[in-house]
Amino acid sequence: MHTSLVAALDIGGTKIAGALVDGDGTLLHRAQRPTPATEGAERVMDAVDGVLGELAASPLWPGVRAVGIGSAGPVDRSAGTVSPVNVPGWRGFPLVARVAESAGGLPVELVGDGVAITAAEHWRGAARGFDNALCMVVSTGVGGGLVLDGQLHAGPTGNAGHIGHISVDLDGDLCPCGARGCVERIASGPNIARRALEGGWRPGPDGDTTAAAVAAAARAGDPVATASFERAAQALAAGIAATATLVEIDIAVVGGGVAGAGEVLFAPLRRALGDYATLSFVRRLRVAPARTGTDAGLVGAAAAALLGRRPEPTTA
Amino acid sequence: MHTSLVAALDIGGTKIAGALVDGDGTLLHRAQRPTPATEGAERVMDAVDGVLGELAASPLWPGVRAVGIGSAGPVDRSAGTVSPVNVPGWRGFPLVARVAESAGGLPVELVGDGVAITAAEHWRGAARGFDNALCMVVSTGVGGGLVLDGQLHAGPTGNAGHIGHISVDLDGDLCPCGARGCVERIASGPNIARRALEGGWRPGPDGDTTAAAVAAAARAGDPVATASFERAAQALAAGIAATATLVEIDIAVVGGGVAGAGEVLFAPLRRALGDYATLSFVRRLRVAPARTGTDAGLVGAAAAALLGRRPEPTTA
Repeated sequence: MHTSLVAALDIGGTKIAGALVDGDGTLLHRAQRPTPATEGAERVMDAVDGVLGELAASPLWPGVRAVGIGSAGPVDRSAGTVSPVNVPGWRGFPLVARVAESAGGLPVELVGDGVAITAAEHWRGAARGFDNALCMVVSTGVGGGLVLDGQLHAGPTGNAGHIGHISVDLDGDLCPCGARGCVERIASGPNIARRALEGGWRPGPDGDTTAAAVAAAARAGDPVATASFERAAQALAAGIAATATLVEIDIAVVGGGVAGAGEVLFAPLRRALGDYATLSFVRRLRVAPARTGTDAGLVGAAAAALLGRRPEPTTA
Repeated sequence: MHTSLVAALDIGGTKIAGALVDGDGTLLHRAQRPTPATEGAERVMDAVDGVLGELAASPLWPGVRAVGIGSAGPVDRSAGTVSPVNVPGWRGFPLVARVAESAGGLPVELVGDGVAITAAEHWRGAARGFDNALCMVVSTGVGGGLVLDGQLHAGPTGNAGHIGHISVDLDGDLCPCGARGCVERIASGPNIARRALEGGWRPGPDGDTTAAAVAAAARAGDPVATASFERAAQALAAGIAATATLVEIDIAVVGGGVAGAGEVLFAPLRRALGDYATLSFVRRLRVAPARTGTDAGLVGAAAAALLGRRPEPTTA
C-alpha cells in the first residue's frame, strides 16, 4: 500500500503531463496530452480531463490522497486560478475547482511551474538537504522558486522565486513583461542565440541557431558564442546574488535546456558570482546543476501536494 | 507589572543606544553612549557595558526577560558575532556571549539593523497588519528587512533584506561592496548629492550639499536636483520590484533621511514602480513612508527579543 500516493499534473504551453507519484517520488503511472494552447478554455480543460481520466483508470487510483498541479504562470494559488502566458484561452481560469470536481473532490494544491521544479530539486535533487535554496530553469524562459527555512516558499499567489523577471539592467532592453533588463531578457536560450547572431556568429550547415548550437560553437572556441554565454552568465549571477542578498540562500540550482551547456555556462557563472555576491553572508553561496530532469515538473507537483497536506496524522 | 519587559540595544557607528521596552513597544528607560568606533574591541564593549549598566540601575530591571540587539552589519546571528563596517575593531566580535554575560545570563537575540527596523515597522508602524512586507532605510546607506508569511525573515545569519546591495545596473558604477550598480550606489543620500553636483547643481549660500538640500532645490523646481531624485527613485523601484517578484510582498515601507524628501522621492518612486513591477502578482504592490522614526532601531531590537522568546507560555 502507498500511504502517500498523489496525482500530479504538469501543465505547460506544449503538453499536459500527469502521473501517479508515491511518497518516494517514484512515477508509477503516466498520461500525457498535447495542450490545445490556441483553443478555448473548455477545450484546454478537456485535455486536462483526458489526462486525469487515464490516471483514474489505474488500479492504483483509489489510493490517491490529493492532486498537485504545477502550471505555467502566472498562477493565483489563493484564488485557485491560472492565466498561463502561452495559453490565451485561460485567463483567471478556475483550475483548482475544476480539477477537484473531475477528481471526485480530492484536495488540490496549485503552484507555479518554477515553484514545482524547486519542490522537486529540494525533495529529490541538488537542493536536497539545503534549508535555503534558489532553484532555476534557464530555457526558452527563465523561471525559479525558493526554499526558505527548510520550507518551499511559494508566496501567497504561488509565484515566488520569479527570478527571470527581476531587472538587473535598469536601462536595458525592453522585456516582453514590460520592464527593462530582466534576467530572462539577457539569459534565456533565445536571447543567447539572438545576441550571438547579432555579434556575427553563424550556424553550421544544419542551420541550427538554438542556444545549444551556440554552446557547441563556444566549446569549439568561437569568441562571439563564448561572449554571448558570458553575458548570460553575468545576468544570472547578478540575479542569483540579488536573491542571496535578499533572502540568504546557500545554493543556487540551475537546470533547463541552457544549463545543458555545462561548463560553457557554469564556469563564467561561478566567476561572475564572485563579482556580484560580495557581502560576507553571501560569499559562500554555491551553484550546482539541477538533477531531476524532464520529470521535475511532475515530481514537484507531487511534492507540493504532499506538502499541502501537512500536518500529516501520525497514527497508522 | 510588565510581563513582556525586554532590554533593547541599537548599535551603530556613531552611538550605542539602549532602552527598557514593554510589550506595547513603549520605551520606559533610556541610556546612550557615543561609539568609540576607531578604538579597540574592548573599548567599544566598555561603551555597551556602560549602557547596560545604566539600564540595570533602573528599578524595572529585575522584570527584564531578554535582551534584543539590532546592530550595524554584517552580523552573524547563528554565530552570535558582529563585524560592523564602521567599527573596525569589531571583526567577528562575540557580542551575544558578551552581552549575555553582562546581563546576568538573560537570553539575547541579535539581528542586523535593517531587520530591526523592519520588526519595528511591522509591530508599530506602516507595515502593521501586512503578512508580506519589505521595510527600507534610505539614508547614508540603504538597508532593509523582510516580513514573510507574517513573520520577520531575518535569515540564518540575520542579514536578510539587504536591498542596498543588490545590483540593478550590472554594468554600472563600482560600489564599495565590490559589486556594480547596487541600489545604494545610486539611491543613497550621498549619491543623490554627488549626482546633482556632477550635473551642475550648486548649493545655496549655506553651502549645504546634503541630499536634503538637493530635495529642497527639487521642490523649488531645479531640474538637475529633480533628475537626481528621479534616478534614485528608479533604482529603488527596480530593487523593490525585484524583491516583490522574488518573494511576493504587499507593501514596501521606506524610511530614513532621504525618505524625508517626501513626494520629491515618493512621486517618481510610484511612477517607476509601474515600469518595473509588471507581473500580475506584483502590480498591486503599494509604497508607504515609515512611521517609527528615530527610535525604530530600539523598538525593533525589542520586537526581535520578544519574537525570539516564542513560544510564550500561555499560563499567567
